Amino acid sequence: MDMAIYSTGDRVQVAQKNPVAKTYIGVVSKDSTSKVLMLRLDNGYSLGVKLGKGMSINVIGKQELKKSVKVNAKQDKNMPKISIVSTGGTISSSIDYKTGAVSPITKPEELLAKIPELTKIVYVTNVAQPFAVFSEDMGPKEWQKLAKEVASELNKGNEGVIVTHGTDTLHYTAAALSFMLTNLSKPVAVVGGQRSSDRGSFDGALNLICGAHFAKSNVAEVAVVMHGTTEDNFCLVNRGTKVRKLHSSRRDAFRPVNEMPIGRMWKDGTFEVLNKDYKKRSTGKVIADVDFESKVALLKFYPGADPDLLKYFVKKGYKGIIIEAAGLGQVATNPIDKNKSWLPAIKEATKKKVFIGFTSQAIYGRVDPFVYSNARLLKEAGAVFLEDMLSETALVKLGWVLAHSKNHTEAEDLMLRNIAGEISHKIEPRGFLY
Amino acid sequence: MDMAIYSTGDRVQVAQKNPVAKTYIGVVSKDSTSKVLMLRLDNGYSLGVKLGKGMSINVIGKQELKKSVKVNAKQDKNMPKISIVSTGGTISSSIDYKTGAVSPITKPEELLAKIPELTKIVYVTNVAQPFAVFSEDMGPKEWQKLAKEVASELNKGNEGVIVTHGTDTLHYTAAALSFMLTNLSKPVAVVGGQRSSDRGSFDGALNLICGAHFAKSNVAEVAVVMHGTTEDNFCLVNRGTKVRKLHSSRRDAFRPVNEMPIGRMWKDGTFEVLNKDYKKRSTGKVIADVDFESKVALLKFYPGADPDLLKYFVKKGYKGIIIEAAGLGQVATNPIDKNKSWLPAIKEATKKKVFIGFTSQAIYGRVDPFVYSNARLLKEAGAVFLEDMLSETALVKLGWVLAHSKNHTEAEDLMLRNIAGEISHKIEPRGFLY
Repeated sequence: MDMAIYSTGDRVQVAQKNPVAKTYIGVVSKDSTSKVLMLRLDNGYSLGVKLGKGMSINVIGKQELKKSVKVNAKQDKNMPKISIVSTGGTISSSIDYKTGAVSPITKPEELLAKIPELTKIVYVTNVAQPFAVFSEDMGPKEWQKLAKEVASELNKGNEGVIVTHGTDTLHYTAAALSFMLTNLSKPVAVVGGQRSSDRGSFDGALNLICGAHFAKSNVAEVAVVMHGTTEDNFCLVNRGTKVRKLHSSRRDAFRPVNEMPIGRMWKDGTFEVLNKDYKKRSTGKVIADVDFESKVALLKFYPGADPDLLKYFVKKGYKGIIIEAAGLGQVATNPIDKNKSWLPAIKEATKKKVFIGFTSQAIYGRVDPFVYSNARLLKEAGAVFLEDMLSETALVKLGWVLAHSKNHTEAEDLMLRNIAGEISHKIEPRGFLY
Repeated sequence: MDMAIYSTGDRVQVAQKNPVAKTYIGVVSKDSTSKVLMLRLDNGYSLGVKLGKGMSINVIGKQELKKSVKVNAKQDKNMPKISIVSTGGTISSSIDYKTGAVSPITKPEELLAKIPELTKIVYVTNVAQPFAVFSEDMGPKEWQKLAKEVASELNKGNEGVIVTHGTDTLHYTAAALSFMLTNLSKPVAVVGGQRSSDRGSFDGALNLICGAHFAKSNVAEVAVVMHGTTEDNFCLVNRGTKVRKLHSSRRDAFRPVNEMPIGRMWKDGTFEVLNKDYKKRSTGKVIADVDFESKVALLKFYPGADPDLLKYFVKKGYKGIIIEAAGLGQVATNPIDKNKSWLPAIKEATKKKVFIGFTSQAIYGRVDPFVYSNARLLKEAGAVFLEDMLSETALVKLGWVLAHSKNHTEAEDLMLRNIAGEISHKIEPRGFLY
């Protein structure tokens, strides 16, 4: 096989025989190496094909450069004003097929040229980009910058803000904004896309359209606004503290946990409310209260896990740890091998004023220290059972709470107080596998 | 409020005012303390009520001791022979309401007296209990003992085996049995119960009935057989490597991931196959191949996570680590704070021959190193992307594989080879949120 037979930008048909016979058609991207052929498929996905024996590659055309379609992206200043804050990631980038280079969209006109429908919904006053990182590279510092930027845009007189974000850690960021934006009086839509914006199948378009409708809505919450199904019909509006990416690649990957979505936002702007329990739009300045204790960790328990791991975090000066426990909030407390009991390490940690919070790796449901006697031992050792809070939300909340409380008692009180919809008093059964 | 007004075994009505007005009716259990009143509710659940101001407690009756109903538990030796292996936990225990003491069921007659329907389905030759621990106290050593016991029972001429298990880590154990029982020629049903066996609402009864039907079926796999809905109509038969507890307390908490359940086992023994891709019953001795490397860890990535954690495991002599990464298999590789990049720590680990496997915390879907360039960097650093394997299954498989491979290449090959149905070549869309 000769690398020279095709080059970047060629449209090729690849037929492989192993491990199964398959044919792919796509455009060669410049990321290709001598071992892996990177294709951009027609559905917008990227695909890496391992080059190997028994494979045939035929050039079947040249990638047609997209015609610069002249769109009527003229904005109407009488439409509700919103602003977009972009953090980087697929949704806010444009790819040059000639070179494969990814370039960020930084002007309203660029975005509106791609999604002219937006001009019929809102007036985009600004596209701000405080930083550009992939979502897996986000961290507390980026959450802080982002919260400040969003608050600033909201306080400039915009009706709402759309945050564009890579999808992988989008739910952590949505939770962070939920706690950091206090006195939130306007909607904040967090949207992502799994396919790049220069594609016909660009899923970010629907998400941005729904996000724009949401940004002028009556809901004063941070919400994740993403595809509700694999169709381009509506987005789910899920509360920022009660949502999780539950599929690595589907467009409808973001699902509510333990509650119904706030609603469905249809493409035409119809807002079908499914859960009336949301904060309504009001007036007043939004505050970015971004103090955050970054020495917090999330630790998933598993059978046979060594409790020394907990000691490691304590030694490293961590101030709080969320233990993603089994079932109703269980870790080993009475194993046959006594060294595997987590009870002594938990006692030691809480004695040193390290906050130990329990969530469930079952994802849905609530932790409860009162069903089994061994969980009561954990509670007596100082572990705090965090109701039906998602592990990811609990981690983010803990960092925020520890920077906002004077002592352990106050921290416990704040962790168990419902601040941004993160604790459901009653779990909605329809929210299971919704 | 006077503790003396009620005592263990009393049926009481508790009315609380805070945080919300609620009334509970249940029987006082002896676990009650001066701070928490433990009730056994009529639905079989335990509930702890924090005693406090504004609460009224009225004794409304005495718990009626269950009449020892004489059941026709006589076994028919012509029925298909099966055996039960009990590990402890709610399903295999009986609670004395007078004292609250939990005692294990160790004889077929005791179990059959509780679930006489079993005599019409199978002939239970033995109830073995190699150990008795709660499921959160299980570990590799218990998996090994259990696998040996199950193999021994299967090789004694039983048609199949039912394993009873606490629910919290049941899916880890089911995965362990799936790898350890090689040459499996008969069915192994792993069942649990969320409510104790002396309750009318004992959910373990349906699970045991379905488990018994399954144990004489044609499916030579380890399967989790648990309630399919909140009704007592059928159980789902889910492959032991493709199932997860997805709710902390619902009876239908065990759901398939990335594939359809093998089928529905109805109460009357009707087996409705939903996924034909299962191993059929055959003959031949079952082998308990239980070698296991216990120095394996499961590590969940989160934004801002310190890569030093990985170094800690390497230093501690761990031989393999499953990283439950974000989305398609992402961890920080290019953060603004360079100390937060996981790339150097992963390179260092793989250089020292520590196996690094990637799974997705999105749960559903597949990891893929070829969509984004930063994931390719992780692959180049030696991380192995474990397709659509569940994190819990991957952890268990890694411990088993590392004890069954001579070197890193062989381990990688085994980890990527489908041994017990843990890797789906094609993900079944209907398996999403099933």
